[in-house]
Amino acid sequence: MEVLAQQIAEWKPKKVAVQDRHTAEVLSNRLSGQSSVKILHGTGGYVEIATMTEVDTVVSAISGAAGLIPTYEAVRAGKQVALANKETMVMAGQLIMAEAAKRGSALLPIDSEHSAILQCLRGHSREDVKRVILTASGGPFLSFTPSEMKKVTAEQALKHPNWEMGPKVTIDSATLMNKGLEAIEAKWFFDLTMEKIGIVIHPQSIIHSMVEYNDGSIIAQLGVPDMTIPISYALAYPRHLKIDASPLDLWELESLTFEPVDTEKFPCLSLALEAAHLGGTMPTVLNAANEVAVQAFLEKRIGFTDIPMLIRKTMALHKPLSVETLGTVLKADSWARDKAKEFLAQKAKNGNS
Amino acid sequence: MEVLAQQIAEWKPKKVAVQDRHTAEVLSNRLSGQSSVKILHGTGGYVEIATMTEVDTVVSAISGAAGLIPTYEAVRAGKQVALANKETMVMAGQLIMAEAAKRGSALLPIDSEHSAILQCLRGHSREDVKRVILTASGGPFLSFTPSEMKKVTAEQALKHPNWEMGPKVTIDSATLMNKGLEAIEAKWFFDLTMEKIGIVIHPQSIIHSMVEYNDGSIIAQLGVPDMTIPISYALAYPRHLKIDASPLDLWELESLTFEPVDTEKFPCLSLALEAAHLGGTMPTVLNAANEVAVQAFLEKRIGFTDIPMLIRKTMALHKPLSVETLGTVLKADSWARDKAKEFLAQKAKNGNS
Repeated sequence: MEVLAQQIAEWKPKKVAVQDRHTAEVLSNRLSGQSSVKILHGTGGYVEIATMTEVDTVVSAISGAAGLIPTYEAVRAGKQVALANKETMVMAGQLIMAEAAKRGSALLPIDSEHSAILQCLRGHSREDVKRVILTASGGPFLSFTPSEMKKVTAEQALKHPNWEMGPKVTIDSATLMNKGLEAIEAKWFFDLTMEKIGIVIHPQSIIHSMVEYNDGSIIAQLGVPDMTIPISYALAYPRHLKIDASPLDLWELESLTFEPVDTEKFPCLSLALEAAHLGGTMPTVLNAANEVAVQAFLEKRIGFTDIPMLIRKTMALHKPLSVETLGTVLKADSWARDKAKEFLAQKAKNGNS
Repeated sequence: MEVLAQQIAEWKPKKVAVQDRHTAEVLSNRLSGQSSVKILHGTGGYVEIATMTEVDTVVSAISGAAGLIPTYEAVRAGKQVALANKETMVMAGQLIMAEAAKRGSALLPIDSEHSAILQCLRGHSREDVKRVILTASGGPFLSFTPSEMKKVTAEQALKHPNWEMGPKVTIDSATLMNKGLEAIEAKWFFDLTMEKIGIVIHPQSIIHSMVEYNDGSIIAQLGVPDMTIPISYALAYPRHLKIDASPLDLWELESLTFEPVDTEKFPCLSLALEAAHLGGTMPTVLNAANEVAVQAFLEKRIGFTDIPMLIRKTMALHKPLSVETLGTVLKADSWARDKAKEFLAQKAKNGNS
């Protein structure tokens, strides 16, 4: 709240929205007299800001499923949307892209991988794309054995080798669920079939992704692992404006290497690809179960290898429906969260079953 | 001649041009009765074919300065020109680009590095280019000591680690003169100042070149070292059509590495950059002296480290003139060849001076 109050003082926005009513009230009282800002809260507050007539670009960077509705409404309002929230695409990519096409809303990725793909696609014909290759650092446990993986703690998983990120996405990077979600996101963003999306382990996180064309030419985007670069590209698109990011020093680099992904070791990735293949509401269920599982892992209620187990169990009970409305998506999301929490409760009762 | 006769039988061209009158006559006699092809010879023959009204694309792949006049005339005739002959740009880049702009002739590079740069520039704003980074394998002598360099034989220099090419360009790759000529070529092709052209040693020849943008993003083009890819791109531009080239297998790759260029060890590169800096007819003189020196080296008349020495001596005697006409260029070329040959003759007379 301290940081937000400082930002309000510095940038003097008309409206600000926070998650809950209580925080909104405390902030509002604190600022009364000093500022004319209107403090909103919850999904309604986010939507109000994302659809203001004077807004032309919305940066959607709320973590998790909570970002879905405000992003959807921004798209429906015809805003340009810079998207850092990958759950929106995972859950409702089909709806979002259809609305974006209808409303003339431009969607731009902020994720470094999708920003790379966008940069590697520009200027080349979509017909000529053989496949898109997402790079994955492999996270901190790339060289761990299965038994070492079982004992992984939240503290270990929160230390990403290359990127500094929030806790949810850092755990997702350690399980490689993040890469699975990105593959689904790429499918929608770039209108690809899953067969045209490859994943390669590239532990140095210098090549952020690549596009392979039909003549054998591969276009890749490289840079230091610094989110200011993809953020800047999304905001300045299609320009590469001068920003205060470190340039990549080619001779300071260790060598760049690539290896195939071991999906047995990282079952979360297989589950994500399976969900994408099954389609409909299955990716939503995958995502919801994953959010519940990661939260439980961060709270030390389950182990690292319980994350995929919980997701698999939840997915096994779901019969995917076709995604025609946001209602269908939200219902599947809510069902999956309840189901995953039931499994968690059972597990707590039964001990380490 | 055997191969050419087969090609004529297979493709049934209207006209064919070879370098000398004698070859033209022998070929003509051999084919008389079997084919209605007209056999031309020399620069006049090349120009006649390059400017035929029914031709829309000219592939300029004659090695060395001999390619200049036919290429220039193809550009003046408004043809699309796919250029494998880098000497044309080194000698007369300014004239060629001015004529191309005037006549609406599209110039497309076939050199793998320039093809890579073209692919990495498309879709991005020229204003945002921080620099173009040419990659160099470093050739077969990257790890040689200065005394080992002195003893290099033509046989050793003709073994390029990654690419199979003609003898002239293979020697130029071993001295890194090739990279210097490419830097000058890139200057003209992409309208860059020399300050915006960097060179990096990348021994694996997988990244064919890169473009660094102002936001720190680098776009790179990768592929197996196979000339069919850039040739196909130049002919299908801007499409990447399906061709019979091996795809790059990322996990079969050894790791990709980069290192700075040691210009003391490769003085030919320094000489090329110096010639580019001096401008005017100096790059023509550099190129002419280099052709004479490489020929002498291949004929075992001089040593490997004599190549830069001969070029330096020739350049030292030249006062560069502004390039206003092809005549100025051709005169400088001829002067430099004579001068370099004089030095060779002197050297032969004086022994190893």
